[in-house]
Amino acid sequence: MKNESEMRFSMVKERHKKTFQKSVDIGAIDEQMIRLCEFINSTKKYFTSSSCAGRIVLLGVPKGEDKKGSYFHRKWHRKVKFDELWKALNEKASIETAKFTPERRKEFSGKIGGKDDEIWFKLDAFILHIGCGNLEDANKLIEVIQKAGIKRYGITVAKEGKFMLELIGTQNIAMPVKKGGKILVEREYLKKVLGFANKKLGKNYAQLSRFYKNCKLHL
Amino acid sequence: MKNESEMRFSMVKERHKKTFQKSVDIGAIDEQMIRLCEFINSTKKYFTSSSCAGRIVLLGVPKGEDKKGSYFHRKWHRKVKFDELWKALNEKASIETAKFTPERRKEFSGKIGGKDDEIWFKLDAFILHIGCGNLEDANKLIEVIQKAGIKRYGITVAKEGKFMLELIGTQNIAMPVKKGGKILVEREYLKKVLGFANKKLGKNYAQLSRFYKNCKLHL
Repeated sequence: MKNESEMRFSMVKERHKKTFQKSVDIGAIDEQMIRLCEFINSTKKYFTSSSCAGRIVLLGVPKGEDKKGSYFHRKWHRKVKFDELWKALNEKASIETAKFTPERRKEFSGKIGGKDDEIWFKLDAFILHIGCGNLEDANKLIEVIQKAGIKRYGITVAKEGKFMLELIGTQNIAMPVKKGGKILVEREYLKKVLGFANKKLGKNYAQLSRFYKNCKLHL
Repeated sequence: MKNESEMRFSMVKERHKKTFQKSVDIGAIDEQMIRLCEFINSTKKYFTSSSCAGRIVLLGVPKGEDKKGSYFHRKWHRKVKFDELWKALNEKASIETAKFTPERRKEFSGKIGGKDDEIWFKLDAFILHIGCGNLEDANKLIEVIQKAGIKRYGITVAKEGKFMLELIGTQNIAMPVKKGGKILVEREYLKKVLGFANKKLGKNYAQLSRFYKNCKLHL
């Protein structure tokens, strides 16, 4: 017989498993994340929630907004060639070019393209959320995370029947490249930075692979 | 009578309190962090461990090294003028200029100044570690963290008698500016980026203040 918190966990795990499978089906999960998430979801004690394998982005930040109010002018979950980056940077950000869900599109209507809007070039490391049912399983996962050499992690939700852990990579680049339609950064310098970004993205994926191997061994 | 895990907590709290006071006495704690840490340490249930209020840095990365193998060519826990940044960037990184503890100095001997060494310009957001004795108190702290609008946090150690939480700000800039003694970035662009960095550092300190106020109200 399951107790209340075990029942809660079973329900939460089942729900997340369905959401994950739907996301795979519509191609919304990064290729590099699929086998890792599939393995975690195949275990008895763990499930995955939202994730991103790492990406190179041009992030739009409307005036006075923070991360929540920002949007993707472009994003790539792979290494990027300089020509495509430069072309995208020169393209005017607008409600049509920005990557939104239909709901968020409404929210941003009329807010993009102002003279103080910023575009940031970023390499974002991977982020992954893993759930389990109790503190003991959370601590077991922390051991695996540490074995894989991942430095940034923590339990963000700690309730009986639902524990959530957040794991984040540490390969990052972030710099402003455009403001109010004017490109701030020189072409040659951005080309060099993209070289660093592509290299770091490789390291980021390697770290995810290392975590996958450790999960297979220890979970 | 205290039970075993309460006794463990009392000992850990007392030890961290002493370390904190020593660090204040030798001027090793950032001004903006002192009142926050002093308040947290004055509560019955919480204590602080390592912290940084946020900083602008020139980070040196010897060839093939990661964050652990990197060193500070310069760091400032305040807004920075462009002249001092440009002067520091032009200065050759060496074992003499790098900021080390004596132990780490040995470790880096002969490793700084190679032709593939990188210097990164970074705005690092605040980071703070807070400890408490049990999951209930950790969850109470998470509520306060959320009220203050801090998005990145988690329980990193979860043992009876010792729970540790890590809080990190989200204001960041990171870009490579020098490699093998050659400056990669143009002066005018770096000047603009420093403007963004100083502004973000202000936002970062404001977020710390908001957290301080929420701690005073709710802890």
